[in-house]
Amino acid sequence: MDKIPILRMGDLLLVTIQVDLYDRIAEALEADLVQMINKTGAQGVLIDISAVSIIDSFMGRIIGNIATMSKVLDAETVVVGMQPAVAITLVELGLPLNGVLTALNVEKGMTLLRTKIDIKYNGSDDGNTE
Amino acid sequence: MDKIPILRMGDLLLVTIQVDLYDRIAEALEADLVQMINKTGAQGVLIDISAVSIIDSFMGRIIGNIATMSKVLDAETVVVGMQPAVAITLVELGLPLNGVLTALNVEKGMTLLRTKIDIKYNGSDDGNTE
Repeated sequence: MDKIPILRMGDLLLVTIQVDLYDRIAEALEADLVQMINKTGAQGVLIDISAVSIIDSFMGRIIGNIATMSKVLDAETVVVGMQPAVAITLVELGLPLNGVLTALNVEKGMTLLRTKIDIKYNGSDDGNTE
Repeated sequence: MDKIPILRMGDLLLVTIQVDLYDRIAEALEADLVQMINKTGAQGVLIDISAVSIIDSFMGRIIGNIATMSKVLDAETVVVGMQPAVAITLVELGLPLNGVLTALNVEKGMTLLRTKIDIKYNGSDDGNTE
């Protein structure tokens, strides 16, 4: 079990991180994810880190990398389920995950992505423009 | 990271198994899942085992247990993403996962669950009954 599975749900991809992201596994995840976005034309990526209770600068950087790579491939990234202690640690490490959207849980993350995708294709974020 | 996260998506729950299910972690998963079904009133449980490349009789039994527990709590269980080698092993072990629905991937599993839930509440599996 040396690979993190990427689940496809419609035009979104879901990645649940449950193991420590060491070099090889992190590299494989990045490679798999960009390939999957390319193959499926996914519009958004949800990264669930609710099982992550300890985070370090390496893992923070990997999440940032994934978000940047996805952005280049025209997909938004939302990190969901962050534990309070992890949020504190990220700020203390000086890694506030700039450019990464966050949401409290998968459902809220999905809603956020849907809204983002909607705005992108309909050109407006309110319904009043005629 | 000694817990397997359970993600809520509408009235479905998604569990992605990426680590070996040892005694304690398997027990925690069972307990968490029944609690989550009870709390959320979930109608279906999706268990993604696409990251599982080696399966033993213990893990097979745990999956069976989860399905039975969910059934008692009025939720269907679908196992998705089983690797071919795992399917062969399960049959060779004499554990064909009776009573557990399977689907090729998460999307197909969700469709299957939706159909099941639909049939349950509308009492019929075809649209011709007026």
